[in-house]
Amino acid sequence: MDLHAMDLYIKSLIKEAGHRICNSFLTDITIESKSNANDLVTNIDKEIEQFFIGRIRRDFPGHRIFGEEGFGDDIQTSEGVIWMLDPIDGTMNFVHQKRNFAISLGIFKDGVGQLGYIYDVVNDDLYHGVKGRGAYYNDEQMRPLMETVIAESIVAMNATWAVPNRYLDHEGTLQLIRDVRGMRSYGSAALELAYLASGRVDAYISMRLSPWDIAGGMVIAQEVGAVTTNFKGEPANLLKQDTFIAANPAIHQELLKKYIRLK
Amino acid sequence: MDLHAMDLYIKSLIKEAGHRICNSFLTDITIESKSNANDLVTNIDKEIEQFFIGRIRRDFPGHRIFGEEGFGDDIQTSEGVIWMLDPIDGTMNFVHQKRNFAISLGIFKDGVGQLGYIYDVVNDDLYHGVKGRGAYYNDEQMRPLMETVIAESIVAMNATWAVPNRYLDHEGTLQLIRDVRGMRSYGSAALELAYLASGRVDAYISMRLSPWDIAGGMVIAQEVGAVTTNFKGEPANLLKQDTFIAANPAIHQELLKKYIRLK
Repeated sequence: MDLHAMDLYIKSLIKEAGHRICNSFLTDITIESKSNANDLVTNIDKEIEQFFIGRIRRDFPGHRIFGEEGFGDDIQTSEGVIWMLDPIDGTMNFVHQKRNFAISLGIFKDGVGQLGYIYDVVNDDLYHGVKGRGAYYNDEQMRPLMETVIAESIVAMNATWAVPNRYLDHEGTLQLIRDVRGMRSYGSAALELAYLASGRVDAYISMRLSPWDIAGGMVIAQEVGAVTTNFKGEPANLLKQDTFIAANPAIHQELLKKYIRLK
Repeated sequence: MDLHAMDLYIKSLIKEAGHRICNSFLTDITIESKSNANDLVTNIDKEIEQFFIGRIRRDFPGHRIFGEEGFGDDIQTSEGVIWMLDPIDGTMNFVHQKRNFAISLGIFKDGVGQLGYIYDVVNDDLYHGVKGRGAYYNDEQMRPLMETVIAESIVAMNATWAVPNRYLDHEGTLQLIRDVRGMRSYGSAALELAYLASGRVDAYISMRLSPWDIAGGMVIAQEVGAVTTNFKGEPANLLKQDTFIAANPAIHQELLKKYIRLK
């Protein structure tokens, strides 16, 4: 893989997709629910995924595509090159706010992240990472994360996980809320990972994410030194839904050991 | 009061203050704690408040100033014209993120809001409202809020209030988290009120806010039909700290009656 050539190709592709999303604000958007009433999808999510797939099939015929809306391939194994795509991460924000959503794309080869992209469409902010060559916020290289402690950290997490639930002991979550400097919730896993990589938050935690939610962000976050695992401390599963924590390396272990108690 | 002339004056003043804040990113910022370790203040908060006060005293000598950093007047009554100012609302975001903070300013006359401003400095987005003449996002008039229901609402609230606390029954908060479409937390009361007025969230709830946190946002929110009260359903107290809820009129009463149970 020529990472440099692919990087240029992908940036241009993502900007074109972003332009299509912005244009959609001028048209009627059709909203449906998926797994539950609050799991939204729109015709634009679908159209943008199909736009990406058309281009990737034409220009990279040997590659496979794992996309949120299901128009890609049926992915059961991690070999070869896989494009993991969420055409609109944060669909609820897209529908309700017309901002605070992102295109999320990760390119993995034999299970190893090579290229990662998070494009905050409305702000025209592109975060990207190239394995071994650093992470960038637009054209500016992002710095390695600075050391921190829990009491001075900002953690991004949905308030849902403070409610008694079947995944983890919510008392641990409540203790975390008490102990950190601040909690934030932006409603887009991709943007929250971009914020982590930028040092604007110090951890991002979610009980349930899909590979396309985190693939792009993982490559970017790892390039600035963030640690990304599931709640057992293992590498996040990129073939199916899993728990997920991405954090500043100085607090990752403490978050897992002290606050996150899987049921 | 000539609201139109004051509006032009204030917009220019706020933009100048925003420019000073942006310039501060090039200098060293000194951070201190106030009431607790997470209640931050910087030299920039203080400098910007003093900048406003200098101009207001010179150009509106009869007016009083109620500012977060305490350089203004000792305000015990609401008569006359009072400028309620938070020079940097969301200081934690200012320090950690260098974004997601705002200048918040409300001008009240004999206790009635006349002019309100929320300036998202980094995005150069100004929200403002003029009593009886509408609310604006930059130069675009904002539309009256559309009807909604709890199950399709996005509520902005800090996760802190899901933790058992001395102000309200946190079980009500947990039920709210279960029942709404989504929860968000941005870390700036002013920006969360601007989001409410824009229809990007449908309610903003906080157990403890000061007059300068909400004064500007109240004028803006009321111009698009939002209802702003304390948790007892009374007008928010603009002389001291109080509980606060600002919501789409279609859900304000239900939020108060069903979910917010004061201890």
